[in-house]
Parts: sequence; structure tokens; C-alpha cells
Amino acid sequence: MKLTLSQIAEFEEQGYLFLPNLFSAEEMTILNAEVPALLAQTRDEVVREKDTEAPRTAFYVQTWNEVFARLARHPKLLEPGTQLLGSDKLYMHQFKINAKAAFDGAVWQWHQDYATWFNDDDMPSPCAMNIPLFLVEANEFNGPLMFIPKSHRRGRLAAGHDVTTTSYPLWTVDNETITRLVAEGGIVAPKGPPGSVLLFHGNLVHASGSNLTPWSRWIVYLSLNRCDNAIRRFKRPTWIANRDFAPIEVLTDDCLLRDAREQRPAAE
Amino acid sequence: MKLTLSQIAEFEEQGYLFLPNLFSAEEMTILNAEVPALLAQTRDEVVREKDTEAPRTAFYVQTWNEVFARLARHPKLLEPGTQLLGSDKLYMHQFKINAKAAFDGAVWQWHQDYATWFNDDDMPSPCAMNIPLFLVEANEFNGPLMFIPKSHRRGRLAAGHDVTTTSYPLWTVDNETITRLVAEGGIVAPKGPPGSVLLFHGNLVHASGSNLTPWSRWIVYLSLNRCDNAIRRFKRPTWIANRDFAPIEVLTDDCLLRDAREQRPAAE
Repeated sequence: MKLTLSQIAEFEEQGYLFLPNLFSAEEMTILNAEVPALLAQTRDEVVREKDTEAPRTAFYVQTWNEVFARLARHPKLLEPGTQLLGSDKLYMHQFKINAKAAFDGAVWQWHQDYATWFNDDDMPSPCAMNIPLFLVEANEFNGPLMFIPKSHRRGRLAAGHDVTTTSYPLWTVDNETITRLVAEGGIVAPKGPPGSVLLFHGNLVHASGSNLTPWSRWIVYLSLNRCDNAIRRFKRPTWIANRDFAPIEVLTDDCLLRDAREQRPAAE
Repeated sequence: MKLTLSQIAEFEEQGYLFLPNLFSAEEMTILNAEVPALLAQTRDEVVREKDTEAPRTAFYVQTWNEVFARLARHPKLLEPGTQLLGSDKLYMHQFKINAKAAFDGAVWQWHQDYATWFNDDDMPSPCAMNIPLFLVEANEFNGPLMFIPKSHRRGRLAAGHDVTTTSYPLWTVDNETITRLVAEGGIVAPKGPPGSVLLFHGNLVHASGSNLTPWSRWIVYLSLNRCDNAIRRFKRPTWIANRDFAPIEVLTDDCLLRDAREQRPAAE
């Protein structure tokens, strides 16, 4: 899995890249089979919505589920990350499943992830990025990710700490700034079938609406960071802001399909 | 303005009809010029969102604004209503502007309007309908109306009175029923420029999401009812459930464009 030069140029220009159908139906079946039991667990890492018991986010899943442990080392996700971040020494700053549950899934306000990584975790530079993988179809109705193209070019924006809108505190961008950025770049919401992958810059401004449909909108997020850009403040629990800075050892392309007990790290 | 037989058949089959660009840009400019001042008024008829001061709905506007008084008698809206409801004696059960304000506009849960008209107002039969006119563009991002096609064919569904989700109490349909209806009919969200019009059955199940964008999503709603189907319970204020059952006297096609002082009812 290698991005072309034109894909890399598009990422740098727009702040994101969309790769529909990167994973096969068979791989998605293996991943999705794990999700209901994961989200049903009662543990700190599984955060619920503000007004309901619906799951909002399951954090650090790669440490407590074997199948997602393999996904977190998958070359289809790690190799593009290596290309775009310019280093083959990457670690997982955060790994989560955002559930956006049917009927109850609430909004994510407009924000840059690097604002949180900087303000909460003291990450030195925005040499970090997000890679969402659609576990189920993301369509126009079930609260798809919305991006403001090119907004990453403004660098880190002023942010306020919103601790009331949802159950999860977030450093958000104010309405005036959003109005200006949208006037310049518009809004896009990449939609696609299970197995589709987005890659987006740590400074790209994004949000997502509520989900009123009967279709949950499960997305796995890898937040990759360069090992030489490791965080320096340990205010948040390690399951939200990982303190294991060892480089990820990438597995082979068939790692989800082979039996877990046969897994070995690929030769580096 | 007359619907064709195939348009009428489509309405009966799907439960709604979409007429993009029914009003001209000039007419929309005249209407939109009134809206900011309307929504800014402090009066019972202007309902605010639950957690903010953002306007949610301005009711009964045809009685306190001259321009919208003319829209409420516009042949482009009244003639299709007459055709679909099978009577030229119609009155305005409800007339409102739903603001779905930029950034703050909140959801409307899944519901049938006739559930409210029946439960709150004792309207005898569902011989009533809604005609939303888009004052501004409705796009995929700013919380467009979502319909479940064909759901009107199930008649009036069981409904629960939701008084907590938003600032406006609503008789809503439960999640199990929505799941079943969506499996059968899917979801559609007609989108289009200012001046586009929807016509939908009183029993069509609909909802709309939150609006996180800088684009307010203003829609005027005419809720037309047959005069021989007038409500029989007067629990809600007349500005929400109108008690003036006199037939609407339709104006002429140019009624928004001519100076208000020249307006006369068209010959019946």
C-alpha cells in the first residue's frame, strides 16, 4: 500500500485523502464481529453519551481486543501514515472506535485534533494525523465526518474548552472562525461503504452531526504520531493519550485474515 | 399552478412531492428580507432553542407580517394543496418559519404531524398536509428535512409525547417502528435552492438533524387543512393551532411582487 505522488499532493493541498473500499468485505466482517461486545463493556475506556446509555467512544481498544490490536499495526493504514508524516518511526497516540449510535449518536463540535494534542498533551508539533476507517457505511444521514478543506493550512487556531455540549471535553473552534473558513473552503463529507479509509491532517477542522437514523455509524480512528514528536504532558489517562512511544511494528497485509495465534511482526 | 396527474400519483405513492425552484429569486429576496427582524422579536410566537437564545420557530407569522400574510394566500402553494386535499375550502391550521439556526439549530425527532394534530387538537381525519418552502438553500449539511417514503401509508402510528429532547413538545414515533419503516422505505432528504417547495402528507414520518454549519436553514411551513376537517379541541394557543376556520381567499400569482397596498383577493 503506497500513496502516489498525486495523492500525497492532494493531501497536502486539501488536508485529507479518501480511499474508498481499502479493506475487503471479508476483513470488515472480521472487525465488525467484535464491535457489539466491545461497546457493551462497562469500563473506563468506554465513554457513554451525555443523556443516554448509548456508547459514544471506546478508547485504547488495541490493548484489550486482539483483532483491533492487529488493525492497529496494519500496513494499509501504517504505510500511508509513514509516507504522509515522513517517518517510519510512528506510535499510536490514540486509538478509538467512535460509535455514533443509531438514534442516540450526538455531535462532535468543530475542532482540530492538534488543538487537543497541544493543549492537553503538549505535543510539540502537528506532525501527527488521523486515519478513520469506516466499519459500516457512512452516508449523508448517519452523521458523517464533515471537513473544511484547506483549513489545516491556517495552523493551530485559537480554541475554547467545551465541557458541556457532549459527554467528552473538546477544544473547539469558535463560530466566527468557522464561518470564515467555510466561506473559503466549503464543507465536504466523504461518504462510502465499509472498508473505506480517510487520512486527515491534525490541523484539519472537522465536525460531525447527530445520528437520528437506525444505522449506527461506527468508525475506528488511528491517531498516529511521529516518535520524535511524543507528548510531554501526562494529564490525560494513557488510554486517551498513550504514553507508550515505542515504534509500531507493522504486520503483513493478510494480518486480519490469518488466525490471531499465527501473527508475528513483519521483518522491519 | 396545477399539478399533473403523474405528480398527484407520485404524492399518493411516496407521500411527498418536490418542486425545485417554484418561486423566483426576486420573490425569495422579498421574503428573506423580512426574516431576520421576525426571528429577533421577543413574543410568545417566537420559540427559542432549549440551550441557547437561537430562534427555533416563529409561529402564526401570517398574522403579524404583511409579506408572509401574502405568502399564506399564494396560489403556487394553495392550488396544489387544493388538488391534493380534494377541496377548495382550505384553512391554515398552522403557519410557521422553522429557523434551524446556523451552529445552534437542533433536531426535530421522527414524527408524523397528524399525530400532533390528532392528539393535541382532535383533528378528525388526516385530510391535512404540510407545504414547506425553502427560504434558503437546504443542503446535506444544514439539517435538511428527512422523509421515510411511503410511511404515510401506515396511517397514524402510536406516538409518545417527548417534552424533553427540544424546547418544543412533540408526539414522536419510537425507534423500533422507525427501524422497520426505514428498512422498507429508506430515507430521502430533498435538497435544493431557495424557492424550492415540498408537499407532504400529514402522516408521512419525517425528522431533521442538527445544524452545525454557518448556514441557517430557514423554511416556511404552511399546514393546510380542509375546512370540513377543522379541529375540535382548543388546548393549544390559536397561534399554534389556528381556530379561524374561514376558507383562505387565494391571491394572484404576482402577489409577492406587487406592492402590498394594492393586494385584493382574487375572484373565487
